[in-house]
Amino acid sequence: MTVLISGGTVVNATGASPADVIVEGERIAAVLAPDSELAAAARRGDARVIDARDRYVVPGGVDVHVHLQLPMTPESTSSDTFASGTVAAAWGGTTTVIDFVGQARGRRVRDALEERFAEAEGQCAVDYGFHLSMGGVDADSLAELAALVDEGITSLKLFMAYPGVWYSDDGEILRAMQRAADLGVLVMMHAENGLAIDVLRDQAAASGRTAPVWHGRTRPALLEGEAVHRAAALAAVAGAPLYIVHLSAAEALAEVVAARDAGRNVFAETCPQYLYLSLEEQLDRPGLAGARHICSPPLRSRHEGHQDSLWRGLRTDDLSVVSTDHCPFCDKDKALGLDDFRRVPNGLGTIEHRMDLLHQGVVAGELSVSRWVDVCSTTPARLFGLAGKKGVIAPGADADIVVYDPTAEHTLGADAHHMQVDNSAWEGVTVTGRAETVLSRGEVVVEAGRFRGRAGHGRFLRRSLCEPLR
Amino acid sequence: MTVLISGGTVVNATGASPADVIVEGERIAAVLAPDSELAAAARRGDARVIDARDRYVVPGGVDVHVHLQLPMTPESTSSDTFASGTVAAAWGGTTTVIDFVGQARGRRVRDALEERFAEAEGQCAVDYGFHLSMGGVDADSLAELAALVDEGITSLKLFMAYPGVWYSDDGEILRAMQRAADLGVLVMMHAENGLAIDVLRDQAAASGRTAPVWHGRTRPALLEGEAVHRAAALAAVAGAPLYIVHLSAAEALAEVVAARDAGRNVFAETCPQYLYLSLEEQLDRPGLAGARHICSPPLRSRHEGHQDSLWRGLRTDDLSVVSTDHCPFCDKDKALGLDDFRRVPNGLGTIEHRMDLLHQGVVAGELSVSRWVDVCSTTPARLFGLAGKKGVIAPGADADIVVYDPTAEHTLGADAHHMQVDNSAWEGVTVTGRAETVLSRGEVVVEAGRFRGRAGHGRFLRRSLCEPLR
Amino acid sequence: MTVLISGGTVVNATGASPADVIVEGERIAAVLAPDSELAAAARRGDARVIDARDRYVVPGGVDVHVHLQLPMTPESTSSDTFASGTVAAAWGGTTTVIDFVGQARGRRVRDALEERFAEAEGQCAVDYGFHLSMGGVDADSLAELAALVDEGITSLKLFMAYPGVWYSDDGEILRAMQRAADLGVLVMMHAENGLAIDVLRDQAAASGRTAPVWHGRTRPALLEGEAVHRAAALAAVAGAPLYIVHLSAAEALAEVVAARDAGRNVFAETCPQYLYLSLEEQLDRPGLAGARHICSPPLRSRHEGHQDSLWRGLRTDDLSVVSTDHCPFCDKDKALGLDDFRRVPNGLGTIEHRMDLLHQGVVAGELSVSRWVDVCSTTPARLFGLAGKKGVIAPGADADIVVYDPTAEHTLGADAHHMQVDNSAWEGVTVTGRAETVLSRGEVVVEAGRFRGRAGHGRFLRRSLCEPLR
Amino acid sequence: MTVLISGGTVVNATGASPADVIVEGERIAAVLAPDSELAAAARRGDARVIDARDRYVVPGGVDVHVHLQLPMTPESTSSDTFASGTVAAAWGGTTTVIDFVGQARGRRVRDALEERFAEAEGQCAVDYGFHLSMGGVDADSLAELAALVDEGITSLKLFMAYPGVWYSDDGEILRAMQRAADLGVLVMMHAENGLAIDVLRDQAAASGRTAPVWHGRTRPALLEGEAVHRAAALAAVAGAPLYIVHLSAAEALAEVVAARDAGRNVFAETCPQYLYLSLEEQLDRPGLAGARHICSPPLRSRHEGHQDSLWRGLRTDDLSVVSTDHCPFCDKDKALGLDDFRRVPNGLGTIEHRMDLLHQGVVAGELSVSRWVDVCSTTPARLFGLAGKKGVIAPGADADIVVYDPTAEHTLGADAHHMQVDNSAWEGVTVTGRAETVLSRGEVVVEAGRFRGRAGHGRFLRRSLCEPLR
Repeated sequence: MTVLISGGTVVNATGASPADVIVEGERIAAVLAPDSELAAAARRGDARVIDARDRYVVPGGVDVHVHLQLPMTPESTSSDTFASGTVAAAWGGTTTVIDFVGQARGRRVRDALEERFAEAEGQCAVDYGFHLSMGGVDADSLAELAALVDEGITSLKLFMAYPGVWYSDDGEILRAMQRAADLGVLVMMHAENGLAIDVLRDQAAASGRTAPVWHGRTRPALLEGEAVHRAAALAAVAGAPLYIVHLSAAEALAEVVAARDAGRNVFAETCPQYLYLSLEEQLDRPGLAGARHICSPPLRSRHEGHQDSLWRGLRTDDLSVVSTDHCPFCDKDKALGLDDFRRVPNGLGTIEHRMDLLHQGVVAGELSVSRWVDVCSTTPARLFGLAGKKGVIAPGADADIVVYDPTAEHTLGADAHHMQVDNSAWEGVTVTGRAETVLSRGEVVVEAGRFRGRAGHGRFLRRSLCEPLR
Repeated sequence: MTVLISGGTVVNATGASPADVIVEGERIAAVLAPDSELAAAARRGDARVIDARDRYVVPGGVDVHVHLQLPMTPESTSSDTFASGTVAAAWGGTTTVIDFVGQARGRRVRDALEERFAEAEGQCAVDYGFHLSMGGVDADSLAELAALVDEGITSLKLFMAYPGVWYSDDGEILRAMQRAADLGVLVMMHAENGLAIDVLRDQAAASGRTAPVWHGRTRPALLEGEAVHRAAALAAVAGAPLYIVHLSAAEALAEVVAARDAGRNVFAETCPQYLYLSLEEQLDRPGLAGARHICSPPLRSRHEGHQDSLWRGLRTDDLSVVSTDHCPFCDKDKALGLDDFRRVPNGLGTIEHRMDLLHQGVVAGELSVSRWVDVCSTTPARLFGLAGKKGVIAPGADADIVVYDPTAEHTLGADAHHMQVDNSAWEGVTVTGRAETVLSRGEVVVEAGRFRGRAGHGRFLRRSLCEPLR
Repeated sequence: MTVLISGGTVVNATGASPADVIVEGERIAAVLAPDSELAAAARRGDARVIDARDRYVVPGGVDVHVHLQLPMTPESTSSDTFASGTVAAAWGGTTTVIDFVGQARGRRVRDALEERFAEAEGQCAVDYGFHLSMGGVDADSLAELAALVDEGITSLKLFMAYPGVWYSDDGEILRAMQRAADLGVLVMMHAENGLAIDVLRDQAAASGRTAPVWHGRTRPALLEGEAVHRAAALAAVAGAPLYIVHLSAAEALAEVVAARDAGRNVFAETCPQYLYLSLEEQLDRPGLAGARHICSPPLRSRHEGHQDSLWRGLRTDDLSVVSTDHCPFCDKDKALGLDDFRRVPNGLGTIEHRMDLLHQGVVAGELSVSRWVDVCSTTPARLFGLAGKKGVIAPGADADIVVYDPTAEHTLGADAHHMQVDNSAWEGVTVTGRAETVLSRGEVVVEAGRFRGRAGHGRFLRRSLCEPLR
Repeated sequence: MTVLISGGTVVNATGASPADVIVEGERIAAVLAPDSELAAAARRGDARVIDARDRYVVPGGVDVHVHLQLPMTPESTSSDTFASGTVAAAWGGTTTVIDFVGQARGRRVRDALEERFAEAEGQCAVDYGFHLSMGGVDADSLAELAALVDEGITSLKLFMAYPGVWYSDDGEILRAMQRAADLGVLVMMHAENGLAIDVLRDQAAASGRTAPVWHGRTRPALLEGEAVHRAAALAAVAGAPLYIVHLSAAEALAEVVAARDAGRNVFAETCPQYLYLSLEEQLDRPGLAGARHICSPPLRSRHEGHQDSLWRGLRTDDLSVVSTDHCPFCDKDKALGLDDFRRVPNGLGTIEHRMDLLHQGVVAGELSVSRWVDVCSTTPARLFGLAGKKGVIAPGADADIVVYDPTAEHTLGADAHHMQVDNSAWEGVTVTGRAETVLSRGEVVVEAGRFRGRAGHGRFLRRSLCEPLR
């Protein structure tokens, strides 16, 4: 079937202009000047027409950092499933998500992979991919990397935090980076100095400082900056490109800036929570109200200016991507740590709100509409091997398209959202702008306030290697 | 008439992919997936077909810094006319040039404008625009700026060099920047400390150091860095965006990087001569051989690493644009200063070679093909008020299109080029890649090794205001 | 006559320890361990004994930036004479002052010199020297420099502010720096971009912003930073050492730090007013209350953190000296500009309070007692050609010695001070510490709350060249 | 007995001037102006007179980083004993050495301490102290620190290299730093990323790259810079001052500079080998010739400019101290690793040559004579709790005095030196300047080319806490 999206303003990362879009089957067949003969002919044809007047026509969002049905602790699993989470993503205009295969230390990569594939198979409403989280860097797991590249898993996440669980030491990191550099695999890094942080956490707990805010106070921004600097140095020694996940602190951004100024392939993402929320306003609330805002890295102090720095980083392109680190927990799980912040499962749910939240930056004049599309869709697609396929409105690309109403107002919260979690880090926040119609590979999945997609429509994405951003 | 450019790889600033392009009249009507029904239908239609197999299909080049028929001294005028220079541009795949209206101190802006318009009228083979070079900042000239914006002259060049001719002092610069900020006009700056440089020049000449290389040795890189820093500070005080022209030195780039890291709207261009040529290899030759390479800022020392720094700046996007500062002089003019480097007219001719020379960066792996298009076409168009119209292959844009053969080899030199000058700064340089077919607003102007355009096809461009790059 | 200063703690720039000091005539003859046989013998001798128990014994202060009886405008002259100002200095423990010979543009250096020598001759209570302020850089004035070095005037002040009066353009500055570099003369710089500032000042006045605070708001910190950067670049080209006077802003300090990190001979002084007072608290007061705090550079915003930066600069040794820029005006003069901040004569009186005000940094733990001596006495003496003679308690040095009571409290103000001015920028400030006994070249000039010196005791100091601080 | 050192130039860290020095017993009793009555009287007295005309009279050197009789591997112990090493030190004008008590992981601090005290007891020719090297950070060892402070061991060395032997992880480092901050103990850091380096070492060896130069190529400068950055971050979190030992690389220096510019208490030493020798010239020699120059960090590439950076750091005071890291091994030990660089015991012998080698910087004009004394004696004494006692020529200080002939030439080498090692890293190097007469606590230990001291004269130094350098 052919679809004609007509009358809208097509927004890509380098500009916005009036254009009509023709979809044939799963892909975009053409982009047309609205006053051309071809467009006139198309309007006279038998295509299904979607009216996009006064709307942006933007590539579907690409959220490269989500954790669906992730067993975080023996008691607690992130509450969105592949089914529920991808539906929520679609509602928010996100049509690609990349989750993680987690290889815990001592486990075989292949086993972890097969289990995770089985969990997602047939469940997803939009397309999905996987990174590999490696908790046990050894000869066997590194040897497995080449096979993964063939299967379309072309990014490797390592951790400088969580000793005993996911943590790799600097020797292991270097060896994994060397292997990644050989294969062209992009190394993603959770950059916090976990060994030092654990000392501070245990000292705080031992002295009775157990409220949620101590989660933040025991993870100083300096120790995120330190880890970014170290990761960049190790990557330079290995000759590997590097991607810092969930960057939250001015000190960390400064290290990314320094590496980039030196011409190194260092990239970073931040998340909406680090742009909008703060230690003082959200994390430093008593009990559940604070615990709901526990994530790692923590919400940072507004007084220290981290949020302003991150907005500047988005404007200057030193922050390349905005992802969500979506990892929601219901109140029953969050409540497990009311006596000890260390026992609160870490994570917030934002998969549905990313496009809208970042659009507030457009409304406020911080970002152009093109830069909004760039950080939400285009650059994440390019960095993670989906260039040309996702993240652009261009002929030949997958027809993942959002007709976005930039003036619709709505209020976020647990009663209104489609994420499977009984709380919201964004409760009561009113935003301007909304995904009105959403196509995933040519199929309309959200339209007129109704979800019209289905579990299983989403396919696993065999991703190519990272496109170097020269 | 309709043209179908078929089978090529369309390259824009954010990616390259196989696509067909349909031109209706002067503009691009559609970009099509080659395997779509629409493309099949187009091929069956009656469009004129240009075969672009194994070719890039790229937006025509945008050279925002050229000096055609510029009277440099009482004796010497740059040798390319609007007619000859725009033909040479077209040969090289450049379909937009922006030259300057020069208001010398003591002259009325309006008079200068009318004279310059008359010189260009009916002469140009491709589209052209003008910046205003202001040599006399005063109440009258500043008052005239608003009218110029209405007429499509939306950029203002000031000089920190050439005292007594074009130089403005810091108070004048601040006032002009304040006015530009009010109007949204982009301030372009020749950033060299001319007062200090003139002391060094006169000292060199007085002590008999008159060979061409002293042109370089009396313009130290530190004094270009100084001027960039000062211009950025004044722009910050005025709240004006700033564009540094012909940046040549590592020290100058470092100041641009610092300003950009701080989130300021500071941009810079470099030119092919600063990327490839050097003080040691070209300027430090005796007699005419050196004099032909005299330009300002001068070719920089390779030993000090300026060229490497500039390439890094292109990769990191701290250099936004590559222009030519095209300003050729015949040997008879260059010979006027054989006894005194101060009397050599400053300038080289590169208008025809920019796209090819930068393509060598793609060949060498320094730049991606998308970044090549970005710095040669897309970003110059966006910064100078031509976004959406020039610099992109997109429906609705002007059909300024180059079918580029990335494998053709040819050798540059005075006998081979189409510029009207009897020497070449690039004599004997062999390059890979060549503009095969060139369209300017839908008309084929270069094809099969022949120029098919005409003087007067090129129109004056009424440019919009600078699109802020957020 | 022999004097024994016994029982105190001798403080030099690199340490403090109990020691006795013997003065023979005008110079220090010996420093003795208090428990040595020699000290015991000295106590048994016939020396006059000054009891320094519980006191610091420190070198007399060296204030290298004062303006006594300076005609600032046709109507206003700074109110302290050589006689009154040097008495006030002595009261405050300062035993060396360096004032300026001012060569206004168009005047002969020699004439200015002779006139200034005559004004000071026979008037001073403590030793004094002169810098040359050059307002007219030309062949004649530069030629005169060599003679001045022979006469002990080994430092040259230039101005980037005050166009038409003292301002030199960058070409003149470069030429003067080249000459200074040849001679070993230290170049002092008033670093503010005066051309740009004058635009802002006139715009403010034209729009009715005439209150004292506009003096500050029209001299932005960015334009002090700019000027420091430019001065450092010109000094690097000339190969000259550079000394920034009255540094007031974080941006300016950052430029000094960068130059020093690069290994350049760049030094800076700040003044007590920039360490303690602010735009919000003092300058932004109405009428005379604000006008009394007008000086250039202006008091800076505390909100922007300049004061904290300067204290850090003192700790890190990036600020080498604290001087006063002493230049007091009586209320009748300050009142001349109540309708227009531009007409207020610039300057504050601090010559008497410098040692005490900086001692508050010791009390607060910001500085060690050695660093206090270093920035107030030792380093200014070394930088200005008085090494070994002034600024140290060492055998052979001039016996300029202060017995300082670190616990005495007193309150500053017009009624209490000895400066000849009817107001005080420090009115009501209570400080801890006081010069109890002061010797100038072996003579007791202040003792037991009485001034015992005399006009004419102070001698003109023929200074050597700057000792490079390697 | 009284000694009069007469006619010389006394050099302290802040200046040099003619002065006579009187020693009573073990301490300096007085410093006298040579033309004073006191000096005349002293010359008439019965003191033993040392003629210092045309000589510098400088404080005895303080070498805060030496390894005497250190068992490096099961087979190899550093070849200088407390007896032989301190004699060599005295020959070279060094009168204070600080060695290490090494607590290997698993061992009790107290046991290590007692053993080391016993080894040194009665052996030393000059005064000596100890740092604690902690290889096992745990509750017991940290608890012991307070007692050590009482015993005069006020500095703690940690290692980021040598995993399994001395390495502490970041959590252990943070805990040790916190304890040190509480006690006022100075933390010394071996800053190289040992985990990453060991990966590179093993990879090199596995691929047959076993020559000495691979010792250098597997310890990249980036990984020293990384470790310094990390150590500074952890110290900032702990609130502890930090002292980087044997800094060798430009990248490491840049991190020290950044920390110091930010006002943090970060200090660093370098060693003569890093100032003068290089990877290309010394380490990249075959067999024993290269192995003799194996130390850690390694000699750095001259091509990369490390040596120039370090000299600049000494001039700018960003490097505070020059020590030796004296740790010589005889050829039989060095030969153990001729087939595998990893088995070569690390270390060079320089204890005798430090003052002379640095004096070459004075000869070359890189350092003033005062700065030479500062980095070799004054600042090491101040940083390590010996202020006022060592490192100054001042009344009350220990009479550790060197009469230094700045014009004597001699050539270094195994046949000429007094160190107990059969090779020399400095073989054939000719230097200008020599310690002529050396006093240790008032006793002449070197005189007229003969050693006149004795084992056991040197006493253990109970050091105070680090004097903060404000």
